[in-house]
Amino acid sequence: MDRPHDASEYGPIAGAARAALEAVFGERLTFNKATRAQHGTDMSYHVPAPPDAVAFAAGEAEIVAAVKICAAHRIPIVPYGAGSSLEGHVIAVHGGLCLDLSAMDAILAINPGDFRATVEAGVTREALNHALRDHGMFFPVDPGANATLGGMSATRASGTNAVRYGTMRENVLRLRAVMADGQVITAGSRAKKSAAGYDLARLLVGSEGTLGIITEITLALAPIPEKISSAVVAFESLSDAVDAAISVLQAAIPVARIELLDAVQIRASNAYSRLDLAEKPTLFLEFHGSEQSVAEQAELTAALCAEFNAGPFSWAVKTEDRNRLWKARHDAAHAAIAYRPGCRPMVTDVCVPLTGLAESLLHARRLMDAGSFPGVIAGHVGDGNFHAAFLIDPDNSAEIAEAQAINDQIVDQALASGGTCTGEHGIGLGKRHSLRKEAGAALDVMATIKRALDPENIFNPGKIF
Amino acid sequence: MDRPHDASEYGPIAGAARAALEAVFGERLTFNKATRAQHGTDMSYHVPAPPDAVAFAAGEAEIVAAVKICAAHRIPIVPYGAGSSLEGHVIAVHGGLCLDLSAMDAILAINPGDFRATVEAGVTREALNHALRDHGMFFPVDPGANATLGGMSATRASGTNAVRYGTMRENVLRLRAVMADGQVITAGSRAKKSAAGYDLARLLVGSEGTLGIITEITLALAPIPEKISSAVVAFESLSDAVDAAISVLQAAIPVARIELLDAVQIRASNAYSRLDLAEKPTLFLEFHGSEQSVAEQAELTAALCAEFNAGPFSWAVKTEDRNRLWKARHDAAHAAIAYRPGCRPMVTDVCVPLTGLAESLLHARRLMDAGSFPGVIAGHVGDGNFHAAFLIDPDNSAEIAEAQAINDQIVDQALASGGTCTGEHGIGLGKRHSLRKEAGAALDVMATIKRALDPENIFNPGKIF
Repeated sequence: MDRPHDASEYGPIAGAARAALEAVFGERLTFNKATRAQHGTDMSYHVPAPPDAVAFAAGEAEIVAAVKICAAHRIPIVPYGAGSSLEGHVIAVHGGLCLDLSAMDAILAINPGDFRATVEAGVTREALNHALRDHGMFFPVDPGANATLGGMSATRASGTNAVRYGTMRENVLRLRAVMADGQVITAGSRAKKSAAGYDLARLLVGSEGTLGIITEITLALAPIPEKISSAVVAFESLSDAVDAAISVLQAAIPVARIELLDAVQIRASNAYSRLDLAEKPTLFLEFHGSEQSVAEQAELTAALCAEFNAGPFSWAVKTEDRNRLWKARHDAAHAAIAYRPGCRPMVTDVCVPLTGLAESLLHARRLMDAGSFPGVIAGHVGDGNFHAAFLIDPDNSAEIAEAQAINDQIVDQALASGGTCTGEHGIGLGKRHSLRKEAGAALDVMATIKRALDPENIFNPGKIF
Repeated sequence: MDRPHDASEYGPIAGAARAALEAVFGERLTFNKATRAQHGTDMSYHVPAPPDAVAFAAGEAEIVAAVKICAAHRIPIVPYGAGSSLEGHVIAVHGGLCLDLSAMDAILAINPGDFRATVEAGVTREALNHALRDHGMFFPVDPGANATLGGMSATRASGTNAVRYGTMRENVLRLRAVMADGQVITAGSRAKKSAAGYDLARLLVGSEGTLGIITEITLALAPIPEKISSAVVAFESLSDAVDAAISVLQAAIPVARIELLDAVQIRASNAYSRLDLAEKPTLFLEFHGSEQSVAEQAELTAALCAEFNAGPFSWAVKTEDRNRLWKARHDAAHAAIAYRPGCRPMVTDVCVPLTGLAESLLHARRLMDAGSFPGVIAGHVGDGNFHAAFLIDPDNSAEIAEAQAINDQIVDQALASGGTCTGEHGIGLGKRHSLRKEAGAALDVMATIKRALDPENIFNPGKIF
């Protein structure tokens, strides 16, 4: 599947192809070098590669037209939202046309009674939440970055709230997508559940632009809780912190967020955000519910954490107090980068069953402690998902090789414990060899589906496979 | 896709094919007429059709062998669990081999700390729940029948608990399946979430035996709640009952079950179960949580129902009292059949967005009131899903045609309101024309996937397409 970039295989955007694309997009088709460069990179450590051109789509009909032109001339298409992907998804390794959907930013419908919103693919998470505020609702999937909902669907994003509210897998009810033959399909419905044929919505969610271009999404929403309460608590050891988190989850406390920062990350955050947190493994918690339910959750959680030598709890209820309390968590990525000036983080993203989490985390921490560069851990521990970020010098090939070796060891350990090589960042360019290890023969089934639905391999070639 | 049963197309189970299957299954391969007849029917109104032979599989290796033999000789394979499907899924419309997986009933692992169990496909829901009781956990998907977990996965089953706990879509974490080329794949992982490639587990869940034969499933479990409380409450009108249910859901009360029986169903239940419930539209509710949380949920629900002219609430907490209180709901299907002696129910199964539910239900009720046979409604109203059962004389072709026409009108109305033609029963034989209406071009994509993964169309031919 992963063919080399070969000029004889893919066509250039020139001649009739270029004229046809110009007829569709007019001045919204650009060959400008800076625009191409900006669209050929993401927030990952992967080496950028610009597309041959960028088209700013204004609607689905233009995408259909572009797909037909690119299919006829065998030109790769890379869909682009906010460029916030973390495994090189938008990097145009085979050149071709980058289709920027960020101008498709209409919120098409908000149905408060059904807890549903329908949006164009370019609407960002924050724009949607802004529009929902007056309706007393919010969209709960929060990967940190202000990604587009199309991009979040395509990469099966999740984040801090997923422990309570699920990921894009659970929260995309229906989507429209342009397939490689130019057909537009609607997958799923606005109903909460369905047993009507193959679950194409779930197949397209997480397909990373390789099966179809998602143009419109109907999402499940959640009511803004009557009460939100946040807490931060430090532990003497990483295993105490993890075991406390696990005991909270095993007690079925419906915690809305339960995040872990390890001691090195806290040190980085103290420096970056001018905080004075104890430099110990720390849990960041949030509870949603009625006044009574939040009080009950908080009390139970505090009692469980006490069994694992928890330090004192800091609590906050008002929005600004909660934001201050959670500042170290919110700024964790920036703090990590600042911790080693000039570094670029290589972030890995395994997810394991809860009972394997402590072992996986400690294993990762040991590998990083023995490494020749600093590393930090931040985890969505409620899901068994954590990010180990290696703060490497991007110009030092020895460090890159060492980081990749540690990354592989963390992945291997996660797979051995029944987990997955990526909880939320996706495969993209960086985890293709890990997917082969994880999926085995199932990767051949994925490749068969890819060939059947995109026989010319024009949709985001070089990703996943 | 839906080829006619043609002796020249599919091979008979004879000669070398028969010898090869006998070598695999020995005496567990049978051509016995009664066994074939029993395996060629389900719990639906569809006309039975026996397979040519039935093989009782003892393990995955035998299924691999059977698939290879059947592929070589172009013999259809119909997987069989408990025979409790409701749209003809196990009816062998093209003959072939019925692969009975019910003897593959080993519970392979229970991981209490991870809330996971791994089972062979033939384990039934009740057998699993029996084994889980000592661990303080249960498997929450409850379609009523004691189906196998393989069958429930293959049909994307749900039921009364789905409003709180989700369906098989959400609760299957990992599965093993034998594909049409004899390869065994593992899809998904034991982790709570994953972004590793295409979501093949979700593709196989609900594929109705047409893409692969599910042999093993890892499921998410839930803790048995500290407290369970049940309630029954009658309303003056169907719309009051539905509006009350909707207001409970819109208030984000985490109700564990919220079921509706309409007045005709209550009348049938009173007669069948010797009850004296008011013959009015009635909600059956269940709350799960801590002592405090259940009390809070119950109080809020009662207050909301009062705004819709609710009658007095009956409450129960002890298991036997709850079972007595919910008896009408538990026996609803049997009561419906007994309501018209000699009838066979044709059950439809639409699911709509919450705000369209009252209109869909009233529309269905009006059509049934104007029909020439009785009809009852029972609904998983928390999901917007309801079953309208037409109690028809199976020997009266005019009634069958009339029921099918009403069924189509109910489906058309549900699709027009953004819903789906089936919330949980699946497509099977009976909803194929409805799926074409609902999915449009997406059905072509499903067919492309089917052809790619099962090019000889040996897996449960005639279903879905």
